[in-house]
Amino acid sequence: MPNPTAAMLVIGDEILSGRTKDTNTNHLACALTEAGIDLKEARVVSDEHDRIVEAVRTLSKAYDHVFTSGGIGPTHDDITADAVGAAFGAHVDIRDDARDLLEAHYSRQGMEFNDARKRMARIPDGATLIDNPVSIAPGFSIENVHVMAGVPKVFHAMVATVLATLTGGQPLLSETLRVFIGEGDIAGPLGELAKANPDLSLGSYPFQKNGAFGSNLVIRGTDPIKLKRVVGELAKALGVEYV
Amino acid sequence: MPNPTAAMLVIGDEILSGRTKDTNTNHLACALTEAGIDLKEARVVSDEHDRIVEAVRTLSKAYDHVFTSGGIGPTHDDITADAVGAAFGAHVDIRDDARDLLEAHYSRQGMEFNDARKRMARIPDGATLIDNPVSIAPGFSIENVHVMAGVPKVFHAMVATVLATLTGGQPLLSETLRVFIGEGDIAGPLGELAKANPDLSLGSYPFQKNGAFGSNLVIRGTDPIKLKRVVGELAKALGVEYV
Repeated sequence: MPNPTAAMLVIGDEILSGRTKDTNTNHLACALTEAGIDLKEARVVSDEHDRIVEAVRTLSKAYDHVFTSGGIGPTHDDITADAVGAAFGAHVDIRDDARDLLEAHYSRQGMEFNDARKRMARIPDGATLIDNPVSIAPGFSIENVHVMAGVPKVFHAMVATVLATLTGGQPLLSETLRVFIGEGDIAGPLGELAKANPDLSLGSYPFQKNGAFGSNLVIRGTDPIKLKRVVGELAKALGVEYV
Repeated sequence: MPNPTAAMLVIGDEILSGRTKDTNTNHLACALTEAGIDLKEARVVSDEHDRIVEAVRTLSKAYDHVFTSGGIGPTHDDITADAVGAAFGAHVDIRDDARDLLEAHYSRQGMEFNDARKRMARIPDGATLIDNPVSIAPGFSIENVHVMAGVPKVFHAMVATVLATLTGGQPLLSETLRVFIGEGDIAGPLGELAKANPDLSLGSYPFQKNGAFGSNLVIRGTDPIKLKRVVGELAKALGVEYV
């Protein structure tokens, strides 16, 4: 059975302006690879209602799971919950379970539970809350879409919680052969091995170091013994050592 | 006149597996912001012909400019040139101008100009070459799509070359107010200023530092004097100093 598929949707003008570097996609990508879920696409869209609605609809139809990051705080530009609700035609309002969590938290902190903070309890009907051990304001899952915070520490905690509830496939393993050979001299043997092993994915990722050209040759697959064998064959074909 | 719009398309399984961190999107985002071109969307897709064709078509219709990164090397997984050609119905083959560049380069280096390396001269008919001062193999522009290498050093050089040929709008400027106030206490004043200044974009980006919650409040716009005034108003409303 093929692995389940997934997409990442990052929401936020601050990523598109370059002010903030998105690190959540890479974190999710690593976690999904380990869990045996294939990340097939990632998108970044701006803080605009229609853009978010359209992306959520498209991605949730195309993939088994969609993970979103950003836009669930208390400020006016935090519109993700309403947009995701709209994508599924679900009513969105302050929900008792989320409000209770937040009210208790702010009471413990001696902070006012004002209207802005109540916005963080806006959850679509029918959604399941995702626990936020860092700053309490919950994420939520609705249909196959998991809505999480943009702050990396919170995002990481929420990804761990959600992944524990999903059934993955076989973890994708990889072996890397690092060579100081130009890609043009690698392409022949690499292409032949790729043809002979259609169940593996073989890629070449060139780099430049101290003026010399090299490449990381990465072989991916689910069978560790086969991976070792093919990377050995590749090393032999290129006349390099693989330890 | 509103600024021109743009999208970024990153092509590569290695980003989606988490093995490689994409830094090209952030580089492009910063360069476009400075050039007065609004990056509205970014996508990462896998090394699959149909995915690339679909993304190129969709993005080139939706935005003024599309920038791609990755998949233009000599190995079997480098399929971007053919996919972009297919997206526009353009014939793709080894083109004389690109072949001459590469042939001269490998001759200077004393390296064989083999079939794999010739693949890098596959350029769609009607495309304009983008100079590659780092490793010679050119990128290309076809219609409103600029096809560039994934290796960051080469991508940066190509972005600079392409941006010099495009007409931007007004550079988007930003002022940041860093406060150690919870977002819930910021939301009110920030939302009011956002409503009063529809030509500015106001965002709140929370962080956690040494257990304390804070937020970077970012105001973006094209008029530097107005930006300074509004950030001053925000600081006053929050009772903090802005120097």
